[in-house]
Amino acid sequence: MQKISVEELKGAVARSVDEVRATTPLVPSITNMVTVNFVANAQLAVGGSAAMIYLPDEAESIAAVCNSFYINMGTLFPVYAETLPRVARALNRAHKPWALDPVGIGIGSLRANLLLDFKHTPPSIIRGNASEIIALAALWELDCGNRKSGVRGVDSTDSVADARAAAVALARATGGAVAVSGPSDLITDGFNTVFSDGGSPMCCSVTGAGCSLGGVCATYLSVASPLIAAVTACAMYNEASERAFKNSKGPGSFQVDFIDNLYNLKGSEVAMNSLRVEYED
Amino acid sequence: MQKISVEELKGAVARSVDEVRATTPLVPSITNMVTVNFVANAQLAVGGSAAMIYLPDEAESIAAVCNSFYINMGTLFPVYAETLPRVARALNRAHKPWALDPVGIGIGSLRANLLLDFKHTPPSIIRGNASEIIALAALWELDCGNRKSGVRGVDSTDSVADARAAAVALARATGGAVAVSGPSDLITDGFNTVFSDGGSPMCCSVTGAGCSLGGVCATYLSVASPLIAAVTACAMYNEASERAFKNSKGPGSFQVDFIDNLYNLKGSEVAMNSLRVEYED
Amino acid sequence: MQKISVEELKGAVARSVDEVRATTPLVPSITNMVTVNFVANAQLAVGGSAAMIYLPDEAESIAAVCNSFYINMGTLFPVYAETLPRVARALNRAHKPWALDPVGIGIGSLRANLLLDFKHTPPSIIRGNASEIIALAALWELDCGNRKSGVRGVDSTDSVADARAAAVALARATGGAVAVSGPSDLITDGFNTVFSDGGSPMCCSVTGAGCSLGGVCATYLSVASPLIAAVTACAMYNEASERAFKNSKGPGSFQVDFIDNLYNLKGSEVAMNSLRVEYED
Repeated sequence: MQKISVEELKGAVARSVDEVRATTPLVPSITNMVTVNFVANAQLAVGGSAAMIYLPDEAESIAAVCNSFYINMGTLFPVYAETLPRVARALNRAHKPWALDPVGIGIGSLRANLLLDFKHTPPSIIRGNASEIIALAALWELDCGNRKSGVRGVDSTDSVADARAAAVALARATGGAVAVSGPSDLITDGFNTVFSDGGSPMCCSVTGAGCSLGGVCATYLSVASPLIAAVTACAMYNEASERAFKNSKGPGSFQVDFIDNLYNLKGSEVAMNSLRVEYED
Repeated sequence: MQKISVEELKGAVARSVDEVRATTPLVPSITNMVTVNFVANAQLAVGGSAAMIYLPDEAESIAAVCNSFYINMGTLFPVYAETLPRVARALNRAHKPWALDPVGIGIGSLRANLLLDFKHTPPSIIRGNASEIIALAALWELDCGNRKSGVRGVDSTDSVADARAAAVALARATGGAVAVSGPSDLITDGFNTVFSDGGSPMCCSVTGAGCSLGGVCATYLSVASPLIAAVTACAMYNEASERAFKNSKGPGSFQVDFIDNLYNLKGSEVAMNSLRVEYED
Repeated sequence: MQKISVEELKGAVARSVDEVRATTPLVPSITNMVTVNFVANAQLAVGGSAAMIYLPDEAESIAAVCNSFYINMGTLFPVYAETLPRVARALNRAHKPWALDPVGIGIGSLRANLLLDFKHTPPSIIRGNASEIIALAALWELDCGNRKSGVRGVDSTDSVADARAAAVALARATGGAVAVSGPSDLITDGFNTVFSDGGSPMCCSVTGAGCSLGGVCATYLSVASPLIAAVTACAMYNEASERAFKNSKGPGSFQVDFIDNLYNLKGSEVAMNSLRVEYED
């Protein structure tokens, strides 16, 4: 794997932001009921087209014509037992990139079985909080120190640094990228580990900040490699939320201004996000 | 069918807006998970009462007491296979008007079968984008030049003018009205074809602008004929979105101000919308 | 049952508001598709953690680790037939407090059967509008004058005063508290009946004001008795909506500012809400 410099990263981020706005890629999602509206609006705001589905044949049908895809594991329904494996196989067969958010990992047997299956039809990007990333690496029995996950409901009780080994292991196992959300986001392809700073703690007070970030990761997968797509999405979110925080009085006005920023930020502005790179052994 | 003048239209639009605010009609919906909140809030903002349901017997039960009804075909679940035909039959038997949004047409077999069935229990209003209207006329094998639909996910790639023949054919087949959304909306009862101008391209960057317009069409069906109801809803949306655009910095603030405008606009203000009428042969 | 004074109430309200912000209790919900996002954002804004689920084993799994729970009866799906009785039994076995919103009562047989079952695994708080509370007392065949409910879709046509006997009967039957939403909210544990004033009629023009109030009742159940939790939630909503109304131009901007207020109000500010107590015989 080639080492990437911060300057190369910033150029690629700027190009990805502008290319999505120019090409409106079609990025369908299977995503939870709580934040599905926010996911769609975030994908539209960055310039993509969104389409949410739940039935197996619909998912296969739209997977065949999409640019990339998003699967979020929140609020499972019985039909997911059939839909998710079928669409994951269809995407992998067609070499279409897709992003996974393993939210809710640890709750219920269907979610565990579906997440286990994905090891054989791996996603291009896995996005989660630190506890979710640690829990997924453990579920897949990857060798990364076997740290015990501190997932609590949908919240993390582990730090981003705690999840670094798990993220690197997952990235190497999938051949894709892993993004760990936190005060400073960590994004790795298993060799290049990027840190994106900024953002706002207000994101934790708005449901769906993480879910919609996963959806936007999927949107950028239409135009960039897993690492670049995930870094672009994180940098976009950190820039947009940092600016929104300055204009807001609470999570209500924050979310409104955040969407406005997703819509308005140019590639060159997103590339102003503070990025660092470290190289894994 | 009688020819209607622009002056008559404007008077009827103003009366419909004010009558809904005065009478709070009960307009239940079966609508998609993505935008169900926006549909309900739009219906409340124009003065109606909303109630969303998914189970077959619940739909029949509330159809029996409603003023009018809304069915939107997005994000189908297995239970829809039973719910939608039963409620459509109940509505038609009870001569209750209802509006249909055929969103997602072309994706999956359940949606195709359900939409095909509706030919025999026809909706009072069909609202869609140009590609959806062309696709529905083709699915129903109506004679209107058999233009091939350019639907892509949930987006249109056809122009409103392209869909005129399909809209007229659908309106004549149902005995109701068809509304085609676009830069200038076309609304026809198969004889009178009305164009409502204004609006804002920002509507395309907010998920559910079309879905909620369908819901508001259904609300106005409680107090007006299909043509008047659809024109009122389009004129309301065009006025509200034109005003909201001036106060907004992006799709987040646009949606907030748009809902405020739906709530505040008087009948006389909605009637200021630029309307034209042409007569079909 | 001990008589509580207004001063004691205000102290307990202030402490509950601050304690939730300090401890971030985990309060999962099974709640309707229309307003699930608003419920989650309201729970986050007051300082709790939210997690929405629908599958039976997931509900049991998270019930085992939660602080309290919320069940809202809107938009039932087939899987609810198994999920709701199982989670209610799990909660009662584990002595975990939970809040119920019987929205939609009167529509469909599944809802009626589920609500009837809850008599044997009673909720700690029941929150509804006047017609819903009257209908639930009738469904449970409680002796309270057997007034006929005027529920219409999801709206009330009865006054809060009309529902007082039903609320008292339900509170005594459950050993918990009942909150009846209206221009002045009534909250009773069957002996102490509290009235919380303020609020804004704009709440009726935003879908989910009631649903999210139920969710916030559940959040405060993590740190307070049913009566105190329900009074705290109502006082918080009345203060937040009264302040939001002053800053808003319609239901769109109202909802944004309302969430900001839920996030910002201190315990001492919520305790400024106008409260009265009367004692039942």
